[in-house]
Amino acid sequence: MSNKKYGHFDDQSREYVITDPCTPWPWINYLGNEDFFSLISNTAGGYSFYKDAKFRRITRYRYNNVPMDNGGRYFYIKDGDTVWNPGWKPCKTPLDFYECRHGMSYTRITSRKDGIEAGVLFFVPLKSWCEVQKLTLTNTTDAVRRLQLFSFEEWCLWNAATDMENFQRNFSTGEVEIEGSVIYHKTEYRERRNHYAFYSVNTPIDGYDTDRETFVGLYNGFDAPDAVMEGRPRNSHAHGWSPIASHYIEVELQPGESRDFIFVLGYVENAQEEKFIAPQVINKEKAKAAIALYDTTEKVDAAFQALNEYWDRLLDIYVVDTGNDKLDRMVNIWNQYQCMVTFNMSRSASFFESGIGRGMGFRDSNQDLVGFVHQIPERARQRIIDIASTQFPDGGCYHQYQPLTKRGNNDIGGGFNDDPCWLIFGTVAYIKETGDFSILDELVPFDNQPGSEVPLMEHLRVSFDHVVNNLGPHCLPLIGRADWNDCLNLNCFSWDPNESFQTTENKTEGSKAESLMIAGLFVVTGNEYIALCRRVGEEEEAERASKHVAEMVEAVKRDGWDGEWYLRAYDYYGRKIGSKENEEAQIFIESQGWCSGEGPRLCEGTSGMRARHRTQQSRLHQVCL
Amino acid sequence: MSNKKYGHFDDQSREYVITDPCTPWPWINYLGNEDFFSLISNTAGGYSFYKDAKFRRITRYRYNNVPMDNGGRYFYIKDGDTVWNPGWKPCKTPLDFYECRHGMSYTRITSRKDGIEAGVLFFVPLKSWCEVQKLTLTNTTDAVRRLQLFSFEEWCLWNAATDMENFQRNFSTGEVEIEGSVIYHKTEYRERRNHYAFYSVNTPIDGYDTDRETFVGLYNGFDAPDAVMEGRPRNSHAHGWSPIASHYIEVELQPGESRDFIFVLGYVENAQEEKFIAPQVINKEKAKAAIALYDTTEKVDAAFQALNEYWDRLLDIYVVDTGNDKLDRMVNIWNQYQCMVTFNMSRSASFFESGIGRGMGFRDSNQDLVGFVHQIPERARQRIIDIASTQFPDGGCYHQYQPLTKRGNNDIGGGFNDDPCWLIFGTVAYIKETGDFSILDELVPFDNQPGSEVPLMEHLRVSFDHVVNNLGPHCLPLIGRADWNDCLNLNCFSWDPNESFQTTENKTEGSKAESLMIAGLFVVTGNEYIALCRRVGEEEEAERASKHVAEMVEAVKRDGWDGEWYLRAYDYYGRKIGSKENEEAQIFIESQGWCSGEGPRLCEGTSGMRARHRTQQSRLHQVCL
Repeated sequence: MSNKKYGHFDDQSREYVITDPCTPWPWINYLGNEDFFSLISNTAGGYSFYKDAKFRRITRYRYNNVPMDNGGRYFYIKDGDTVWNPGWKPCKTPLDFYECRHGMSYTRITSRKDGIEAGVLFFVPLKSWCEVQKLTLTNTTDAVRRLQLFSFEEWCLWNAATDMENFQRNFSTGEVEIEGSVIYHKTEYRERRNHYAFYSVNTPIDGYDTDRETFVGLYNGFDAPDAVMEGRPRNSHAHGWSPIASHYIEVELQPGESRDFIFVLGYVENAQEEKFIAPQVINKEKAKAAIALYDTTEKVDAAFQALNEYWDRLLDIYVVDTGNDKLDRMVNIWNQYQCMVTFNMSRSASFFESGIGRGMGFRDSNQDLVGFVHQIPERARQRIIDIASTQFPDGGCYHQYQPLTKRGNNDIGGGFNDDPCWLIFGTVAYIKETGDFSILDELVPFDNQPGSEVPLMEHLRVSFDHVVNNLGPHCLPLIGRADWNDCLNLNCFSWDPNESFQTTENKTEGSKAESLMIAGLFVVTGNEYIALCRRVGEEEEAERASKHVAEMVEAVKRDGWDGEWYLRAYDYYGRKIGSKENEEAQIFIESQGWCSGEGPRLCEGTSGMRARHRTQQSRLHQVCL
Repeated sequence: MSNKKYGHFDDQSREYVITDPCTPWPWINYLGNEDFFSLISNTAGGYSFYKDAKFRRITRYRYNNVPMDNGGRYFYIKDGDTVWNPGWKPCKTPLDFYECRHGMSYTRITSRKDGIEAGVLFFVPLKSWCEVQKLTLTNTTDAVRRLQLFSFEEWCLWNAATDMENFQRNFSTGEVEIEGSVIYHKTEYRERRNHYAFYSVNTPIDGYDTDRETFVGLYNGFDAPDAVMEGRPRNSHAHGWSPIASHYIEVELQPGESRDFIFVLGYVENAQEEKFIAPQVINKEKAKAAIALYDTTEKVDAAFQALNEYWDRLLDIYVVDTGNDKLDRMVNIWNQYQCMVTFNMSRSASFFESGIGRGMGFRDSNQDLVGFVHQIPERARQRIIDIASTQFPDGGCYHQYQPLTKRGNNDIGGGFNDDPCWLIFGTVAYIKETGDFSILDELVPFDNQPGSEVPLMEHLRVSFDHVVNNLGPHCLPLIGRADWNDCLNLNCFSWDPNESFQTTENKTEGSKAESLMIAGLFVVTGNEYIALCRRVGEEEEAERASKHVAEMVEAVKRDGWDGEWYLRAYDYYGRKIGSKENEEAQIFIESQGWCSGEGPRLCEGTSGMRARHRTQQSRLHQVCL
C-alpha cells in the first residue's frame, strides 16, 4: 500500500472527509436510527431496508460483484455528450472536484464537473421510514446551462435471499405504479404483502423508467445505461423482470443559479383492509404524507437539523478530554457512533455481512450494550427484554433472533454455552448505568411463548444456572456448540463437505468439551449476579450463587491452570487445548482475559480519565453494585 | 421486436448458428452428459458444476447481473492497444466476424479481428470430469503478429448458495496452488473437503493471476481488467478473497500460422488418506492424468469425435421423415437433445433456474423420462430406481431430490399429491420402450433407509394406493400442497409476507381440496398399472385396482363434470374451482386433458408417422401392455 491519502477527519463537523473516490475498498456509512436503514459507500453505492436486511430489503444490492460496490442510488447528469455522477461511480467520468463527508447518520457528496456543482445530502430523518436525498445543482459559470438529470434505484423483491435465487418466480412478480413524480414498487402487494416502497422527487418530471432492461439495456452496465447515454427516457412500465425507479428531469440553470431536487425513497405498510382504493390501485395516502414532510428545502433542512441535534445530544452525554486528539476523537465521536450502529444492526448488515445469513446476536447484542447504554438507556432496556424473550426456560438461547419478528432463529445453530452469561452481563451494565432496578421486575416470556412470562430477574437466574447445570468432568462449563470464539467447535466431526461447521450436528452427547473462557465469564458475571441479588435483597440466592462461583474458581485453579497460563478448553475426548503440552495452539487469549481476575469492573472503567459524564438526564447515574 | 435475424439452424451439422452476439437474451447451450456440466452462452458466459449445481459449483456466476450474463470463461486477446474476446463479451470490442455454433453438447465460437482469427471449441468429453476449451489462433495476414493472451475463470467456493451470502467466511477461505501451467483451486480442501478443481493449458505460460482483485482491479469490470489493459500479469497468489485462474501467454504467429492452445477446467476427488503428498501440497495425480488425456490437438480431436459419434448414435435411434423440415428438425434433433439435457439437469440449472433453489423433481424426472428412455434405457432405469428410493412407505414423496446425494429434500415442500402417480407413469414408459420387466423386481428402499427395500412393483402399488388413501369428500383425490400446477395451492392461507407459497404451512388437516387433474392422472396411470399387474400375473391386484379406478371414473362423472367441461378442483372449503359458476377462472386445461379420455397411449404415439425406430440395440422394442 502506498502512503496516498484518501481523506481526513473533520472533528469539528464530526465527519470523515474522503477526497479521492478510489478508496482501497468502499468506505461506507450507515444511515437511519430506528426502523429504516441504509448502507451508503463513498460513491453512493449500497442499499436500504426496513428493520430487517433479509426480509424487508427495499433496494437491490449485489455483494462481491465485479466491479466491487456496483449498484446504489445513482444520479446521472448528462451535460451534452458528457455523463457524470456526483459520486464518480458508476460512470467514473473524471471530476474536477470530489468530496464525500461521512457524518453522524448522514453522508454528503459534493462534486464539480465543467462548472456544474452537484451536492447530494443523504440521510434518514428521525422517526421516518424513508431516505431523503437532497440534490443541489449549481451553475458556477456565466452561461445558461441545460442538463439532463436521471435518478436511479433498483428495487429488491423484498426477501434478499430469494431475490438472488428464484428467477422462475422473481421475473414474473415485479409491479409498479407511476403517479405524478412518484414511482411505486408494489411487487406482491396484491397478494400476501401489505407493504410497498416508493421513490419520489419534489418537482414535475419529464419522463421516467421502471423497467431495468429497458433503461440500462442488456449489454451495458450501470456505467452506461442506454436511456442515459441516448438522453432519452423510455417511460417504461415494468411488468415482472427487474423493476427500477428512474426519474428524468430536464434542468435549465441560469448563471449562478442553484436548484434543489428532493428525492425520497420510502417504505409504507397498510392495514389489510386499507390496501387498495380501487382494483389494482394501491392506497398511497401514507406515501403522500411522508413525501409532504420533505417536499421543500426548508423542511429537509429542518429535518436534517433535528438529526444533527439528536446526535449532539447523544454524543454530549459522555465526553473525554485526554489531551490526545486521536483518543478524544475515537472516544467522543467514532467509537460511540459505531456502538450506535452496532445497536441498530448488531452486525447483521455491512459490506461483509450480506444481511442474509444472520439476525441480531444474543451474545453480540448483550455485549455491545455496554457501548450505547449511556446514550439510549430506554432503547437498551427494550433490547434486553427483546433478547431475553427469546431465551429458553432452561436458560439456553437461540444464538440469533430476527429483527423483524423478534423471534429466535436457529439457522445458524444454537447451544453456544456462553450466551446465557451475556444476558447477565448486559442487564448489569444497564442497571449500573441507569440505576433502573425496575427492569428486573419486567415480565418476560421464554421463547416468545405467551403465558411463559417471568420477571427478568428469573431469566438471570436460569442464565446463571445454565452454566451450573452444564458442567463437564472437570466441573468446568461444557462449551456446547462454541463460545466467544465461534469457530472453536470442539464437538463437530463432520467429514461431509456439504456441512457447515455451524450447522453440522454437534456431538454434545457424551462430550467432555469444556471451555475456560466460559468459566472465566461465569465467574465475572456470576459475581455481578451475586452483587445484584444482594442489592435487591435476595440474600439466599446470593449465597447459593456464591457457592457455585467459588466452586468454579476452584475448578479453574485446579484443572484450568497450566502452570504458566490458563488452558483454553478440554476437547470432546477430554484432552487439553491451549496447553504448553500441545504441539500447536499452545495459548489462547480469551481464557487469559476472562480468568485472570474478576474481569472488567464496568463502573470503574473511566475513573482514570478526565471524563465528563453528563447527568443532565436525571435517570443517568452510574451505580456500583 | 424487429425482424432482425440473429442466427439460423444448420441441420446438416445439428447446430444452431448465431451470427450476431447481441441476441435478445443470452442464448445458451449445455455441455456434459454424465457428471460434469457446463452452461455456456453465445458469448461464453456461464458456469460449470460437478453433478449438483448447488453443492459442487466449480465456477462462479452472478444471475440477474448488470450487464446480464456478465461472467464466464473468457479469453482476452491483447493486440497492441486493442483488447478483444472471441465471444465479443465482456470487452464488446467490435469484431470483423463473429459466429457461435451451439451443437450437440458442444459450442464453437469463431471470430476475427484485424487479421487474427480465434476459434474456441468448448465441450465436456465423454466419461470425463472436465471442460475442454480448444482455442485456435490463426494469423491470416502477411505480417508476423505478436499477441498477449489471457485466460480467465473465477472459482466458486463450492456451495453456490453460501458463496453469495457469507462473506465473513468466504473472503477468508480461498486457496490456490500454481504448478507449471496448472492453477489449482483447493479452497477448503485442507479441512473437510476431499475435492479440488484446476485450470490448465498445454503450453508453458509467461505469467498468471489467481487473485481477482489484483487481476481485475476494484474499479474496473470484466470488460477491462487491470492486468489485461496494462498487458502485464501480476503473478498474484490468492489467499482468501476471490480466487480466480488466469494464464498469461505471449504468442507470436508467423504469416498464415495457426496454433492451438488447449485449456482444461477440471474437477478431482481424492480419497481422504490420499489428499496430500506433503504438508499443504495437494495430491495432483488425478489432475495430471486428466490433463494428459487432452494435451494435444490430436487427443482433443479424438475426444470430440467420440462425443459426436455418441450423439450420432443417440439421435439415430429415432428418426422421422415427415416431409416438413421444421418438424423433422424438431423431432430428430432439438427435442431429443432437449430431453437429454432435461434428463441430466431436470431443470435444476438454466439461466432462469439458479441451480440453488431446487434439485431433481420427482414428478419432473418421471414425466421427462418419456422423452429419453429410447436413447438411454439403462440410465433411465437407474433414474427410476433413484427416484423411487426417495419415496415414503405410504407412497408420498419428496417433491425434489438432490443430485449429489440422491436424497430427498423438503426445502421446497412435499405433499404434492400427483407425485406418486408419476412413478407409475415413468416406470410404465420405461417398460413399454424396453420390455424390461425385471425392473419391477429391483429392490428399492423407502426414503433411502437401508433395510426398507421392497421390489419396485411394491412402490408402484403404494403409489397407486396413495391416491386411494387420500380421497376427499367427493371421493376425488385430495390435492395436498399442489398438483401439476405447482401454483394452485388451495390449502395455503398465509397472510405472512415472509412465507413463500411453497413453504408456508399447508392446511391439509380438514381440507376438502380435491384435484380433478389428479383424478384424471390416476385413471390414466391406474389403467396402466392394472395392465402391468395382469402382464406380471398379479390378477388379484389388478382386480382390486380396477375397482378403485372404476370408482374414480364414477366420481369424476358425478362430481367432476360441470355439464360442459371438467372442473379443475374443489377448494379447501369444498367450493368449485374451474366451473362456469365461477366469476373468474372458469376453465383450466389440465383437467380437460387428463380427464377427457384414458390419456395418451404411449405405445401408439408414433404410429401415424413414418418413423424409423431403430432396434439395432436388441433390448429396445416397444411393448404394448
